[in-house]
Amino acid sequence: MTHTQTHYDVIVIGAGPAGYTAALRCAQLGLKTACIDNWLDKNGKSGLGGFFLNAGCLASIALLESAKLYHALVHDAKKHGISVQAISLDMPQMIQRKDDIIETLRLQLAEAFDYHKIDRYPARGKLLNNRQVEATPVDDSKLPIILDADNIILATSSTPVKLACAPIDNEFIIDSVAALHLNIIPKKLAIIGAGVVGLELASIWSRLGAETILLDAQESFLSLLDEQLAAEAYQIYRTQGLDIRMGSRVTSAKKDHKKVTINYQDREGTHTLRVDKLIVASGRTPNTGNLAAPEADLLLDENGYVHVNENCRTNLPGVYAIGDLSLLGPMLAHKGIEEGVFVAEQIAGIHNPIDYDVLPSVIYTDPEIAWVGQTEQALRAMGESIKVSSFSLKTNARAQAIGKNEGLVKIIAHADTDTLLGVHIIGTHASELVAEAVLAMEFSASSEDLARTIHAHPTLSEALHEAALGLKNRSLYSLFSQ
Amino acid sequence: MTHTQTHYDVIVIGAGPAGYTAALRCAQLGLKTACIDNWLDKNGKSGLGGFFLNAGCLASIALLESAKLYHALVHDAKKHGISVQAISLDMPQMIQRKDDIIETLRLQLAEAFDYHKIDRYPARGKLLNNRQVEATPVDDSKLPIILDADNIILATSSTPVKLACAPIDNEFIIDSVAALHLNIIPKKLAIIGAGVVGLELASIWSRLGAETILLDAQESFLSLLDEQLAAEAYQIYRTQGLDIRMGSRVTSAKKDHKKVTINYQDREGTHTLRVDKLIVASGRTPNTGNLAAPEADLLLDENGYVHVNENCRTNLPGVYAIGDLSLLGPMLAHKGIEEGVFVAEQIAGIHNPIDYDVLPSVIYTDPEIAWVGQTEQALRAMGESIKVSSFSLKTNARAQAIGKNEGLVKIIAHADTDTLLGVHIIGTHASELVAEAVLAMEFSASSEDLARTIHAHPTLSEALHEAALGLKNRSLYSLFSQ
Repeated sequence: MTHTQTHYDVIVIGAGPAGYTAALRCAQLGLKTACIDNWLDKNGKSGLGGFFLNAGCLASIALLESAKLYHALVHDAKKHGISVQAISLDMPQMIQRKDDIIETLRLQLAEAFDYHKIDRYPARGKLLNNRQVEATPVDDSKLPIILDADNIILATSSTPVKLACAPIDNEFIIDSVAALHLNIIPKKLAIIGAGVVGLELASIWSRLGAETILLDAQESFLSLLDEQLAAEAYQIYRTQGLDIRMGSRVTSAKKDHKKVTINYQDREGTHTLRVDKLIVASGRTPNTGNLAAPEADLLLDENGYVHVNENCRTNLPGVYAIGDLSLLGPMLAHKGIEEGVFVAEQIAGIHNPIDYDVLPSVIYTDPEIAWVGQTEQALRAMGESIKVSSFSLKTNARAQAIGKNEGLVKIIAHADTDTLLGVHIIGTHASELVAEAVLAMEFSASSEDLARTIHAHPTLSEALHEAALGLKNRSLYSLFSQ
Repeated sequence: MTHTQTHYDVIVIGAGPAGYTAALRCAQLGLKTACIDNWLDKNGKSGLGGFFLNAGCLASIALLESAKLYHALVHDAKKHGISVQAISLDMPQMIQRKDDIIETLRLQLAEAFDYHKIDRYPARGKLLNNRQVEATPVDDSKLPIILDADNIILATSSTPVKLACAPIDNEFIIDSVAALHLNIIPKKLAIIGAGVVGLELASIWSRLGAETILLDAQESFLSLLDEQLAAEAYQIYRTQGLDIRMGSRVTSAKKDHKKVTINYQDREGTHTLRVDKLIVASGRTPNTGNLAAPEADLLLDENGYVHVNENCRTNLPGVYAIGDLSLLGPMLAHKGIEEGVFVAEQIAGIHNPIDYDVLPSVIYTDPEIAWVGQTEQALRAMGESIKVSSFSLKTNARAQAIGKNEGLVKIIAHADTDTLLGVHIIGTHASELVAEAVLAMEFSASSEDLARTIHAHPTLSEALHEAALGLKNRSLYSLFSQ
C-alpha cells in the first residue's frame, strides 16, 4: 500500500510546541528534518501548532482576553467614569478574532519551517519497526507513505479524557476543544473537572455571563498547588461567581429537551442539575493509542504514557518521546519545548540536560497562578526545615493602581541556608512574575538575594521583594491590611 | 517664635517614597523616628506619599488604566465582538477613582506609620544648624516648633521646572500636577517636554481623545535610552497618534480667548500653535530652595542638588540626603526607596551599599519602556567589545494572544565573557519583565544563563529568552516576521 521511501536525519511526529520546537532546533543544527502532523481545524484545514495552539491554552488565553474586556466593560467601566448605553456581544466575531490570532501564529510557524527547510507531512504518523514511520495523509485521496530516519521524536501530545458517564455529542455535551468555539453563551453551564482546563474555561464563560458550575470528584481543590495558594484561589474564584462543587462525582449526563440533565453524587446524596451546556474537562491522556504499530514494540506504561529515561529516550534506539506523551515532568507546553530542544541537541551531540525542579507551572485564569519549586506541604512532609513568608497584593501599590489587587506571593526558603525552595504566586500577571523566581532558583539563590535586588516602583514584582524581606521580618508593608 | 523641643533618633524631612521608606525602616530597626511633610491635596488635606504618590507616577498610572480601558472600548471592542451604542466619559468620576486609589494607599501608609509609632508632623521642615529642624505646621494657626535628632534624613523630592516663557496659571497653562486633575478633555493639547513625564501624560490624554502635540527643544528623542529603543518608541508613539516635534523651542505661551497661543522655533523657522491647554512638563528640579537655613551650611551643587558621598551623607555630620534631592543615580522612586533603606540601616549600624549599576529604569507609558545596565551607544563609546541581540514581540505568542505585540527586547552582552551588560525592553508590562533582567545582572549572569532558564509558555518573558538565544544565533523565531 505504500509507495515512496524517504530518508531523514530526524522525523518528528506531532507539531505541537514540543514537536515544532524539536523540528526547528534539529533543522537549525543542520539535520535533515521532517515533521508529520494530522491537526485539522474545524474547516478541515491542516496547520501547525497542535492541540496547544489550535484548541488549547493559547486559544483559551486569546478568548479570555476578549472575555476580560467584556467583563471590565460591564462591571468596571462605571467606576472609571466610562458609561455605555447598550452592550452587545457578537460571539462569532469573538471566536473569529481568536481564530485569526491562531492563524497568524500558525503562519509564523510555517514560515519558520520553510526557512529551515523542514519537510511537512499533513498526515497521521505511525511508528513502525526499524526506525520507519508510516505517514497516512489527512487528505484521504492520497496514499500512505513510509519514511525512515536515524532518529525519531514522538510528540503527539495528549487528548481530553472521555467519560463514559458523559458521552460527547459536541452540541450539548462538549469537550474542551468545542468549548472554545461556542457561538452562543450558555445561560447555565456545567463543567466536569475543576482542574486547570476546567478553570480556564470557566474563567472565560463566566466572564461572558454564563452561570458556571464546576463538578469535581476530588475532595480537595487544586491539590497540585501549595495549599495556601489553593485556598486563596478558591476564595477568589468563588468571589468571581464560580460555583465549585468538590467531592461531586457525575454518574450520568444526558441531553434532554435541549438541555443537559446531570446526575451527581456527593457526601449528602444524589443531585440533579439541568444546564444548557456541559463541558467535559476531566484531565488529559497521552495520545498514544495509535502511535506505534505492535511490531515496533514501543514500551508504554499502564496509563498509556511512553516510557522514557532521563534523556527522553524510549526503549527503542534512536526513538525519543517528548511533551505530554512522556511521564517525565508535568503536562506543560514549555516542558515539551525544553525537551524538544534537549533532544534535538542530543541528536546533534550536545548534552544540555533539563532541570525539572526549576520548571514553572502556570494556570491561565484571571488572576493567574504560577509557581516554581516545592509546596509547603510537600516540604513539611519531607521533614525539611523551612521558613515561609507571604505578601498580599492588597498592599501592592501597582496592583491597587490597576485595580487588580487580589492574590499573594509566597516564598519558602530553607530555614538554615536561606536557599529558595519554592515561590508561589496568585495574582494578575503571575505567569510573568514567576520568571524572576525561576531564574533565582536556577542560580540556587537565597531569599536574601531577592531581598537585595532592586525592584522598580511601582510594580507587581515588588510583592516578590516584600515576600523575601518578610522572611527576615523586614517587610515594610506585610503587617498591614491583610 | 518656637516653643517645644523634642528629641528623636531620626527625623526624616519628606514623606515621598524615599522619605516614608526611610522612616519605616528606621522605626523597624528600633529608632525613635519623626517624619515631617507638607504635602496638601487639592482640598488642603495633608497626607503621606509625597509628590510621587499624590501627583506623580502613581497617580499617572492609575489614570492611564482608565484611559486604556476607554481606548480599548472605543478602538478594540468591535474586533473582540463587543459593541456598544453610546460611550460617554465622566471625567470627574475618572479623576475620583484615581484619587480614591491614592487615598487608600495614603491610609495604608498612615497605618504603617502608626504601627511603627512614627511621629508625623504635617509641616514644612527646615534644616537648622546643630541637627535641629524647624517644623512649620501646614495649619497656619499653629506655631512652628523645633525638633532635634541624632540623624536627619533629607528627602524633599523634586518639583516641576518652571519656564519663564510659559507661566503656569493652572487654568490654561498647567503643570504636571494639575494635568492629573483635568475635568474636561482638551480637544487640542500641547505639552512642553517630550521626556518621561510629558510622554506619560500624553499617553493618558491622547487615549482619552485629545489631539496631542509634544514640543521639545532637544534634537534627539529620549536621549537617555538605548538608541534602538528610542527609535522604536518614537515609531510606536507616532503610530498611536502623538505628534512629537523635537528641536522645537517654545519662545512664548499666552492665554488668549480661552485658548493658549504658543510660539516656538525649530530649524525651519518660527511657528504658532493654538491649543486648548498647555502642559509644562519640562523636567524636575530638586526641592531644596527652602530646605536649609543659611546657617546650617548644607552644601548644594550649582543645580540645587544636595551634595552627597556614596553613602548618601551630606557635608554635615549625621545629615543624609536621599531620593530626587541628591545627584546620586536617576530620579526614580525605587532609587529613593533603596536609599531610604540604605541610610536607615547605616544609622542602625548595618552597611548594605546600593549597586546603582543594577537599578532598573521605567517609563510608564503604554507600552512601557524598562531597562537595566548600559546602552549600546554608551558601551560602543567606551570601546567595549559587545554582542547584541533583539527580539521583536511581533513573534511572541502571548503578545499576539493579548493583542499587544508592539515592541522588542534587546540584550547586550560582553563579546568574550558573555556577561550581560544591558537589557532594554519596550512592550506591554516591560516594568515587570525587567525584574528578571535586574536579578540576572545582580548575579553577573551571562546571556547563556538566561538562555538555559526555562520560561513558561506562552508568556511575554519568553522574549527575553529568545533575545538571549539570539546572541548565539539560536533563536528559533527571531528571523521571521520582524
